[in-house]
Amino acid sequence: MAAVHIAGVGMTEFGSFPTRTGRDLFAEAGTTALEDAGVAPSAIDAVYLGNFMGELAENQGQMGPLMASAVGTRAPATRVESACASGGVAVRQGVTDIRSGTADVVLAGGVERMHTMDTQAATGGLAVAADDLWERQHGVTFAGAYALMARRYFAEYGGDRTDLAHVAVKNHANAVANPLAQYQTEISVDDVLEAPSVAEPLGLFDSAPITDGAAAVLLVSPEYASTNGLEPSVKITGTGQGTDRLALADRDSLVETPATAAAAETACRDAGIPVSDVDVFEVHDCFTIAEVLALESLGLYDPGGGITAAREGETAATGQTPVNLSGGLKAKGHPVGATGAAQLTELTKLLRGEHVNSDAVPDATVGLAHNAGGTVASAVVHVLEVAP
Amino acid sequence: MAAVHIAGVGMTEFGSFPTRTGRDLFAEAGTTALEDAGVAPSAIDAVYLGNFMGELAENQGQMGPLMASAVGTRAPATRVESACASGGVAVRQGVTDIRSGTADVVLAGGVERMHTMDTQAATGGLAVAADDLWERQHGVTFAGAYALMARRYFAEYGGDRTDLAHVAVKNHANAVANPLAQYQTEISVDDVLEAPSVAEPLGLFDSAPITDGAAAVLLVSPEYASTNGLEPSVKITGTGQGTDRLALADRDSLVETPATAAAAETACRDAGIPVSDVDVFEVHDCFTIAEVLALESLGLYDPGGGITAAREGETAATGQTPVNLSGGLKAKGHPVGATGAAQLTELTKLLRGEHVNSDAVPDATVGLAHNAGGTVASAVVHVLEVAP
Repeated sequence: MAAVHIAGVGMTEFGSFPTRTGRDLFAEAGTTALEDAGVAPSAIDAVYLGNFMGELAENQGQMGPLMASAVGTRAPATRVESACASGGVAVRQGVTDIRSGTADVVLAGGVERMHTMDTQAATGGLAVAADDLWERQHGVTFAGAYALMARRYFAEYGGDRTDLAHVAVKNHANAVANPLAQYQTEISVDDVLEAPSVAEPLGLFDSAPITDGAAAVLLVSPEYASTNGLEPSVKITGTGQGTDRLALADRDSLVETPATAAAAETACRDAGIPVSDVDVFEVHDCFTIAEVLALESLGLYDPGGGITAAREGETAATGQTPVNLSGGLKAKGHPVGATGAAQLTELTKLLRGEHVNSDAVPDATVGLAHNAGGTVASAVVHVLEVAP
Repeated sequence: MAAVHIAGVGMTEFGSFPTRTGRDLFAEAGTTALEDAGVAPSAIDAVYLGNFMGELAENQGQMGPLMASAVGTRAPATRVESACASGGVAVRQGVTDIRSGTADVVLAGGVERMHTMDTQAATGGLAVAADDLWERQHGVTFAGAYALMARRYFAEYGGDRTDLAHVAVKNHANAVANPLAQYQTEISVDDVLEAPSVAEPLGLFDSAPITDGAAAVLLVSPEYASTNGLEPSVKITGTGQGTDRLALADRDSLVETPATAAAAETACRDAGIPVSDVDVFEVHDCFTIAEVLALESLGLYDPGGGITAAREGETAATGQTPVNLSGGLKAKGHPVGATGAAQLTELTKLLRGEHVNSDAVPDATVGLAHNAGGTVASAVVHVLEVAP
């Protein structure tokens, strides 16, 4: 279907900002995207906002109107929630709105505040994205759920904690020069292996951090871009979304994520390209094992083949399949509802040649963003291409 | 833009069902809509779910995948949240999805469980739809906020509690024969006036109840209906959404709801009809004053003119402008995230001639549903027409 242009992107620094409100964070990201595009707030036809745990973290629902006001518009404004995939879903709704002819200019993004809570409360809050009846009530956290997936992966395909550690090491290395990343620090494999255990076999450095932040993209129709003299350099050519059963126990397999496969298949068909045409990837590495499962479900590696990709340098910035040049959720940070939109801001900068890591992929013209919710009950994939 | 057909509708009984889960309620509503349409779950291309307070009421987020599984599909499934307008927004997303060409068959609906909490907790939970910094933290509840609006209305335009009482009396009268309504009982003006005060001047019978329930509509493209031999009798010809500032203190007026006006204007323009062509209305009467404000912002009455409409019988079932023949939120019940979809199920039945109150509007061919969030920071309007 018709491509939608990314006219502007914006993102706050990711980190711990306990004194900043959600509206403050989103105002910065949204305004940055508008200024990047050179578009006034009055041109906005719709706002889509990804947010996961506003009710729990800051007693705030109905964030659509709140965030619309924060950027200076009274356009129709809707919050979407698909756990950690909320930001990607918000972008997808924006693309659909433009394709339907309902809107020409959509601000799509996300925001999350998590440092209003301590780690235990945040972990408990995140767990409401699991199946309450069959998981959360029985003590399942997301670290625990992904630990089950990692253990099953090891049993089924081999691999070990050291293989996984290389995912975290790579993503930290990519974040070192990213001024918006929460952790601009290198770590070693030993750091990962010696870190406190969170849920065996996953340790502290296998896990994305708790993060405050916001991100936004300004989407415009090709007609609007042309009429208004905008020259967006990147466009969304494909969008796809997939769904799986919520509870792990209801799934056919613990080591496959069919929601990702469905989202990727739809997005690539929509873009009219095979995934092998993609030059650079941002994938949802909420835990190291999640990046491995994503690479396999995206079709980049056969089942069992993805776990050594980071160890062998294939997914490094200079590898054949660069993954998470932003630093990923692991090092850039993971403000849940903002993550999907942040992936698109980073990917847009990479494809524009404006990212600190653009030099690693000087010829990249096609990017793919993969955003997942929970243990991948929800997945959203977007294909981005440099506009001709 | 192109009309979207309502191929089927479904709704649970509304009431207090503390032992029924959200997935159980939505499975009933969704399956009823599918069976009403004669469409299999495998045909579903997308699910949109309205839910407001799942995180607070049943520790459950990421309800999109959960509710998709409940009806037997793994189609892309997204939860939207715009407080009490969540269900209407879900339907609007479904219409947009079909218009974009992304989907041919969309199950759009909503669900809410509220009786997991006592009244005080539910009132506190609802308050997260207000502005946390400027309203909720200072003790503002929605009854309190609407009480402010009612007092200002009385001061600006006149009218009194008895005028408002007639709204509740009318809506209860309409619900008497509705088997799905929470309160199938008539009440008198004296009952309303003598009921315990909730927030002066609003009493218990000025307020919609706390309700568990679910509702769903099955939307299909005209092409799908034609190809598959469906003969939907009702179509959505217009959709509109409006936004206002979240906090009352930030508004220009306490007695105007411009989000409703914007939504109605867009929806009527989309449908290509003036609001005067509408034969029957379902409007968002979370409090009696809310119905009055809705009638005025929809353009049916001048400012200050709507408060006597119920008293003078104009909005009665047999009046010139029948409003809330379902019983409205007041008597049918108000399971927050489901309400917008429930309005469409009731309106569809009314226009099909299948509703218990269809006899009151035998010639009705055009209906309008108005769904609002909070103190109308969000509003969604749909225009429904009998398919030729």
